[in-house]
Amino acid sequence: MTLEKSFIALDAMGGDHAPEPIVAGALDAVRLDARCVALFGRREALEPLLKGVDYPKDRLTITHCPDLVAMNAKPAQAMRQSESSMARTFRAVKDGQAIAGVSAGNSGATMALALRHLGRIRGVTRPAICLTLPGLGGPRLLLDAGANARCSAEMLVEFALMARCFSSAVHGVETPRIALLCNGEEEGKGTELTQATFELLNSTNLNFVGYCEGSDIFSEAFDVIVTDGFTGNVALKTIEGTGRFILGQLKAEIKGSLMARVGALFARGAFGALKDTMDPSQYGGAPLLGLNAPAIIAHGSSDALAIRSACRVAAQCASQDLSVQIEGAISALTA
Amino acid sequence: MTLEKSFIALDAMGGDHAPEPIVAGALDAVRLDARCVALFGRREALEPLLKGVDYPKDRLTITHCPDLVAMNAKPAQAMRQSESSMARTFRAVKDGQAIAGVSAGNSGATMALALRHLGRIRGVTRPAICLTLPGLGGPRLLLDAGANARCSAEMLVEFALMARCFSSAVHGVETPRIALLCNGEEEGKGTELTQATFELLNSTNLNFVGYCEGSDIFSEAFDVIVTDGFTGNVALKTIEGTGRFILGQLKAEIKGSLMARVGALFARGAFGALKDTMDPSQYGGAPLLGLNAPAIIAHGSSDALAIRSACRVAAQCASQDLSVQIEGAISALTA
Repeated sequence: MTLEKSFIALDAMGGDHAPEPIVAGALDAVRLDARCVALFGRREALEPLLKGVDYPKDRLTITHCPDLVAMNAKPAQAMRQSESSMARTFRAVKDGQAIAGVSAGNSGATMALALRHLGRIRGVTRPAICLTLPGLGGPRLLLDAGANARCSAEMLVEFALMARCFSSAVHGVETPRIALLCNGEEEGKGTELTQATFELLNSTNLNFVGYCEGSDIFSEAFDVIVTDGFTGNVALKTIEGTGRFILGQLKAEIKGSLMARVGALFARGAFGALKDTMDPSQYGGAPLLGLNAPAIIAHGSSDALAIRSACRVAAQCASQDLSVQIEGAISALTA
Repeated sequence: MTLEKSFIALDAMGGDHAPEPIVAGALDAVRLDARCVALFGRREALEPLLKGVDYPKDRLTITHCPDLVAMNAKPAQAMRQSESSMARTFRAVKDGQAIAGVSAGNSGATMALALRHLGRIRGVTRPAICLTLPGLGGPRLLLDAGANARCSAEMLVEFALMARCFSSAVHGVETPRIALLCNGEEEGKGTELTQATFELLNSTNLNFVGYCEGSDIFSEAFDVIVTDGFTGNVALKTIEGTGRFILGQLKAEIKGSLMARVGALFARGAFGALKDTMDPSQYGGAPLLGLNAPAIIAHGSSDALAIRSACRVAAQCASQDLSVQIEGAISALTA
């Protein structure tokens, strides 16, 4: 599959600050990464953002969709809006006009519409949100980050398998080390779900390395951390909240002291580098793994870099035929 | 109850660096806070640490116990060591020689031995570990932090009730705002457990304010965050791991740049203040709520300040008759 001629469908109206950062990210993807991007959204909102901008017209298109999904809409409501920019984004993938879909809109609606239009891969019980986190030694994946509050052990094994495929295809990790999030490292810890999953993972040919505690999410020892969508969502948001609290406290302390303010000026390079490390923008949103084509859920607060990165991840998933790989791995598992 | 004449039983041999920081903390509690502390441990290890030190002999005693619980011992093994310093610590409380017990040893063993010797409060299904965290607007409680991987909705309501009593008694919060940890704020989010607990909490007279996401653990809006011991343990350790990762990254960035190193020197007051905010030592360990007398599980890495704080929390729980308060609250609930 040659990406040069394949479009990424992008919901230009989804996101807390859409459409400006979405269009800016699309322009970067087109001009800096030579991608083809199909924007879906209100023509009258999008065209002014491209006026006077120099870009290859055949690589960045606008498809007018008057309707949009509100950031606080219920998924059921979004499902009824068949002509929204989000619905059109994923329908374009289904219809073969694009190789992957990206939205920074309402994530519940994105999941519902991506699932409806792209469909589950044969053998996959439920798709999962696969988050990329920074960490010692490189990025790591945490899934399910919130698609399924209730999971079975079989589902967690499927998540592990799908993340293995993604880790290899996008992060280039040959044999990802897979861990199961738990309340302790020793065997016998955990719930019925983690214990059953532990047994099942051990019976597969996955590189399962055992339990991982919350304190070790950032350690060098793991490439993929598997959990149910309830625990994964709590962990992910706890990371966000802890980071915000620590940096907020540090900022307040520095602001309160002249000496520290002078010091922070000198150290701002270090703060900047830390911000980059913690910045989810570079990882480009979370794929909803388990669908027949790539669907990327970008953060609602996505800036241009996040959108550009999401287009990169979408293109990588498509060029590596990730869905086909996942289908093969799942069918080998059940065989 | 006058605390001046009441001893806190302290396992002098429990902790990663015991007995030095334990004895140092006991000395501070005795000399700075006028407490009475009964140390349990090996006389030959403890006496040299007190040699030549000026302290009121009638307020700091040593009870010789030759045996000790290994930091990596299984609870079942610890239960068979009836003469260990840890077992003797909690037996002293049971026998009325002390008003509360504190150990920084093996936390599984501490739970098991505290439960055996102090017994559950009537009406309490299972005791819970109640962690105090820093946050905007003051400390907040997170429980269960790991005692019970499997919980029922009824247990979570008991945890909320016990934490309300502790929050009032120790942190002086008159009507603690109680939240339930979940993967979203909207009703309908969560698992069967959170949904059933949501209903039950709403039917009590507790000041239940709804769901709390992981990102809001540090927010000003909550005094008590209730969850099962699996999720609570993952959240607590994720906070630890995230803090360690962020500060480690910042340190590495600063080390790598001369400019930043100079800056950090000026800003060290700010870093110090942040470290104090995040330092669990000042909160003095986590009480195991639901027993007939106060039992405090101090962190294995406790320093003298952490032990001194644990003695303070133990004394506060005892002086406020926390166990009696909890028993009353539970019986009012079930009535």
